[in-house]
Amino acid sequence: MKKEKLKKIKNKLSKIKLLILDVDGVLTKEEIIYDDQGRELKIFNVKDGLGVYLLRLIGIKTIFLSAKNSPILKKRAKDMKVVEVRGGRLPKEKELTEIKSKYKVKNEEICFVGDDLIDLGMIKKAGVGIAVKNACREIKKASDYTTSKRGGEGAVRQITDLIVEAKGAKKIILDFIKNPKTNQKN
Amino acid sequence: MKKEKLKKIKNKLSKIKLLILDVDGVLTKEEIIYDDQGRELKIFNVKDGLGVYLLRLIGIKTIFLSAKNSPILKKRAKDMKVVEVRGGRLPKEKELTEIKSKYKVKNEEICFVGDDLIDLGMIKKAGVGIAVKNACREIKKASDYTTSKRGGEGAVRQITDLIVEAKGAKKIILDFIKNPKTNQKN
Amino acid sequence: MKKEKLKKIKNKLSKIKLLILDVDGVLTKEEIIYDDQGRELKIFNVKDGLGVYLLRLIGIKTIFLSAKNSPILKKRAKDMKVVEVRGGRLPKEKELTEIKSKYKVKNEEICFVGDDLIDLGMIKKAGVGIAVKNACREIKKASDYTTSKRGGEGAVRQITDLIVEAKGAKKIILDFIKNPKTNQKN
Amino acid sequence: MKKEKLKKIKNKLSKIKLLILDVDGVLTKEEIIYDDQGRELKIFNVKDGLGVYLLRLIGIKTIFLSAKNSPILKKRAKDMKVVEVRGGRLPKEKELTEIKSKYKVKNEEICFVGDDLIDLGMIKKAGVGIAVKNACREIKKASDYTTSKRGGEGAVRQITDLIVEAKGAKKIILDFIKNPKTNQKN
Repeated sequence: MKKEKLKKIKNKLSKIKLLILDVDGVLTKEEIIYDDQGRELKIFNVKDGLGVYLLRLIGIKTIFLSAKNSPILKKRAKDMKVVEVRGGRLPKEKELTEIKSKYKVKNEEICFVGDDLIDLGMIKKAGVGIAVKNACREIKKASDYTTSKRGGEGAVRQITDLIVEAKGAKKIILDFIKNPKTNQKN
Repeated sequence: MKKEKLKKIKNKLSKIKLLILDVDGVLTKEEIIYDDQGRELKIFNVKDGLGVYLLRLIGIKTIFLSAKNSPILKKRAKDMKVVEVRGGRLPKEKELTEIKSKYKVKNEEICFVGDDLIDLGMIKKAGVGIAVKNACREIKKASDYTTSKRGGEGAVRQITDLIVEAKGAKKIILDFIKNPKTNQKN
Repeated sequence: MKKEKLKKIKNKLSKIKLLILDVDGVLTKEEIIYDDQGRELKIFNVKDGLGVYLLRLIGIKTIFLSAKNSPILKKRAKDMKVVEVRGGRLPKEKELTEIKSKYKVKNEEICFVGDDLIDLGMIKKAGVGIAVKNACREIKKASDYTTSKRGGEGAVRQITDLIVEAKGAKKIILDFIKNPKTNQKN
Repeated sequence: MKKEKLKKIKNKLSKIKLLILDVDGVLTKEEIIYDDQGRELKIFNVKDGLGVYLLRLIGIKTIFLSAKNSPILKKRAKDMKVVEVRGGRLPKEKELTEIKSKYKVKNEEICFVGDDLIDLGMIKKAGVGIAVKNACREIKKASDYTTSKRGGEGAVRQITDLIVEAKGAKKIILDFIKNPKTNQKN
């Protein structure tokens, strides 16, 4: 990856207040898992979880935006201190006006991460659009940045690390790690 | 992959009206998953799902043809708008006459995707026979084309993308993505 | 792999009547899967399954020999037409005398496949000892042959294919595939 | 890896009496797995299991130290003869004083293995701090050694093998393998 490109994306990420994540293929390895009694399972990544959990220490909220809602997302959202799980409405970019108004953020304060065609509108309209490594061609082409890690294998952590760096906020994170009780906001 | 080979397979795929997919090893990573109470699980790929779901916008139906039927296949078929799940009868090619009559398709309008010996008859008899990367030697040898992706890792999406390209139908897909409600047929 | 080595292992495999398979790490990817209610899951490979299933057409029986028994093994054994699941007794090689007597086979008619230290005695004592790619050093060193595929990713199928080749029995297999009903023995 | 570095870590490991393992990302592939009824699953590695199980033959106890406790850990701990599962308190290094007193070990007799920021205090304070291949930068930098295998793919076994080598205790292990009953201590 070019240094120039990294500098540019960091500059954009330094303004972010809201991180919106697609789920399947971004927080997971594109897996749709069913058992023969109709139950679903999802496999998330523990490092993505810590990354998102720590973002709120520097005032960044996270939202899951999936084409399909599921109780699993609610459970994982709780672990990661994600503020909202939105799902079910297509095209996804229809949610954008409501989200901006609800969280009082401007377009350039929103980063969206996606991997497939139904994320195309969001990738184009959000202030910062990021594609995971396993995204389809159209998403990569329309995005500001593509992660070097695949969805479910730490792509989201790579992005949260980049945001922390862009904000110059690593010390806040490390202080919290040393002293979670004292530093915990919520 | 040779350009010549790609041109040839696209030409064949431009006539397709029916896509028949083997399940284990094609829609999954060859995994057979059991728990200790006799339940089964299957892991599908979300990008394969969207690929098949979108095919019906250009008039292509999809069928799952497995050696073993399972309620899991029915559930995944519903997500993907697959018209039928066939299973249980061997050799699989015995289903071909019935399928052609039921869906009113000619042999050259059928594409079958398989990975193992029990798919050999279908690979040979269907108008277009495609092997996934992880197919056994005999299947690859008898097929018109081999995907560069493995089963469960996007091999089926690679094929549906190829069909869309072969049919020159990418605009239809992207219009639907922008406006799912208006464009939705079913 | 050297041609010489392949020729030698094929010569040994041409005499085989009984295939004894360790389970974890050989039929699976070394995974031990639990849920929070004490249930276990196992992930097998569908191509291994067909390979073992077809072996009985050429008169070769298969046994699972695991350090730990489980109802999951029984279920998978049924799919694969495995004649027996043995588990629980250590060291595993203690089973050998009983197995030889029960199945009326000589030592050189037995092939054992393993991956870890507790398989060492069996690897040394069975007529043919095969290590999977992911076996520990000691097992590889003591074995007649090491597969190029990992356990759970088709290592067992690689061995059953090698046995079919060694026995010159590919036509029997392909005839059965074309006509399962007529050719089915059991 | 440099020979010098391997010699140094073996020298340190030769004094170890207690092995403390982080769980997610160390004993697993960073996976957090939920089903839609709130149940959790974890995928461990069978070779890690045997490695830890055998350590107690040479007088080394193992502890799981996780940020989140779970009944799954208790079950896997029982398989592996792990003496204690500790979880829930952050920062993790707060447990160190209690652990040292309970197990009557000095700091240089403790080896801790971790992969993410919340392991940083333990990595720094334990006599020997080991990072798995998939650890974050900060953990690798603070550790005495980084495994070449990833968590859940045999990283822990790599460490237990190294400890056995460092202690010159391979014969004890192999004798037990040959004769588990006679040699079993517990």
